[in-house]
Amino acid sequence: MRIGAIEAGGTKFICGIGNEQGVIEAFISFPTEHPDITLGKVIQYFTDKEVGAIGVGSFGPIELHPESALYGYVTTTPKPGWENCNFLGILKRHFPVPYGWDTDVNAAAYGEVVWGAARGLRSCLYYTIGTGVGVGVYAEGQLVHGLVHPEGGHVLTRRHPQDDFSGICPYHGDCLEGMAAGPAIEARWQQKGFELPTDHAAWEIEAYYIAQSITNAILMTSPQKVILGGGIMQQSQLFPLIREAVKHNLNGYVSAAEMNSYMEQYIVPPGLGHQAGLYGALALGLRAYKQAQESVSAQ
Amino acid sequence: MRIGAIEAGGTKFICGIGNEQGVIEAFISFPTEHPDITLGKVIQYFTDKEVGAIGVGSFGPIELHPESALYGYVTTTPKPGWENCNFLGILKRHFPVPYGWDTDVNAAAYGEVVWGAARGLRSCLYYTIGTGVGVGVYAEGQLVHGLVHPEGGHVLTRRHPQDDFSGICPYHGDCLEGMAAGPAIEARWQQKGFELPTDHAAWEIEAYYIAQSITNAILMTSPQKVILGGGIMQQSQLFPLIREAVKHNLNGYVSAAEMNSYMEQYIVPPGLGHQAGLYGALALGLRAYKQAQESVSAQ
Repeated sequence: MRIGAIEAGGTKFICGIGNEQGVIEAFISFPTEHPDITLGKVIQYFTDKEVGAIGVGSFGPIELHPESALYGYVTTTPKPGWENCNFLGILKRHFPVPYGWDTDVNAAAYGEVVWGAARGLRSCLYYTIGTGVGVGVYAEGQLVHGLVHPEGGHVLTRRHPQDDFSGICPYHGDCLEGMAAGPAIEARWQQKGFELPTDHAAWEIEAYYIAQSITNAILMTSPQKVILGGGIMQQSQLFPLIREAVKHNLNGYVSAAEMNSYMEQYIVPPGLGHQAGLYGALALGLRAYKQAQESVSAQ
Repeated sequence: MRIGAIEAGGTKFICGIGNEQGVIEAFISFPTEHPDITLGKVIQYFTDKEVGAIGVGSFGPIELHPESALYGYVTTTPKPGWENCNFLGILKRHFPVPYGWDTDVNAAAYGEVVWGAARGLRSCLYYTIGTGVGVGVYAEGQLVHGLVHPEGGHVLTRRHPQDDFSGICPYHGDCLEGMAAGPAIEARWQQKGFELPTDHAAWEIEAYYIAQSITNAILMTSPQKVILGGGIMQQSQLFPLIREAVKHNLNGYVSAAEMNSYMEQYIVPPGLGHQAGLYGALALGLRAYKQAQESVSAQ
């Protein structure tokens, strides 16, 4: 059985097909343009692929509540053409199969739970730190939606004492995304992250903000694993700086070996590398397929 | 059927008995002393009450994982006699009934879900702001435990621009609890909270810290309701200040009517007043009773 997977990012889409063993057999990628163009390419890709289900991890905000009339929509985004776009509805008209549907970061968290660094755990956080910052939340064996869905990229953090950058978030100025996303690094230092030397002062400041948000997230949700992905986290010198800063922040308050002795196994890169989102979409599709099968056999 | 309920706080214990309809029929309260004394009083209270189950919401940190050898223990507390105290084990020797067991704040959150301000919802946060600060987390229909359990009272917040108080948390100095718990207010102003006029500058500062932690918690967990209890929240002038500050912080980013038009129904006092913790313990006991019944009838 083939399962379709769509990682629907704000800047690019990745469509793939995989199997029940969690192997991605093929995929393509294209830029995120107007939905007429982009969803057209998605439909073209899956035509004749005969997928048994499709999983989607999408940029947001999106509607996740199955009882909502807008379930499956991208909602209030400023991205041209995508506001109130019936993403799932358009796909369903072409491919009447079961769908998995969640945020891009929740999908990535789920992929890591099923096949990656959080395999077998009942909780984890998945951060993506790149063009923007997002956080997927998996708790007590379930992806967290709540009222809308988590938007942990926009938490407020204390300012680094040596940082007078004002932040670039149009909503919050100096929230986490406003201070630590890729465009913030570039605006602060007039260079892109990958152009800065690995011992540049930028990285200690970057780690400071990320670590503070992780500290607060640990205190609020007590995850079994914290996974850091996205383009900025390709700067692997950040990991030890972040772990050290989280440990400093917690100051021994949380009495758990993971926090005090095994931090290098607690705050980790994605087990699925840069494909956590696509694998996550596959896992969501596979789950939707199995749920549909169970629902049929229960009738 | 009578169900026992224990709200085991760090300064006082409340023991009660209630029924399946969620009515507390009687309760007593006594100070938290050495466990030999305090658990002795608990045992004395429940002797001859013939309860079918007991629910406990306890101060912590506590062990919540059923597979742990220390399940039911209070673990690393500095409170004399309570470190590694086998709380549930001691009770079980006297009353061999099903037990519900969770943190005091998770219990209160659960009480509010079953009979209070979050009735019927699948997610909420319960803050207690008093001698200390704690946060119970209920997400996707489950109390969140994770690696240990949430300790949301100790999140780091930005400093209020007019506040130079250094904070009193022995671990973190100026974390939320260090800046906003009752003893912090007293240390900052040399008066207890209830002695300060309702228009004192203290309350705007207090609301600033609480609102910041709520803002970040909303962004991280997207709760359907935020419930604020505890002694400090008896200062009802705080509610409008907190709601206004949360709205200011979010700045329209989360597109939900609850956040933008109905904030007074979103950030609310406990529906069960100061008894949320005791009702929560009753609800945990009742749940344990039902689970045991179901387990028996499934055999």
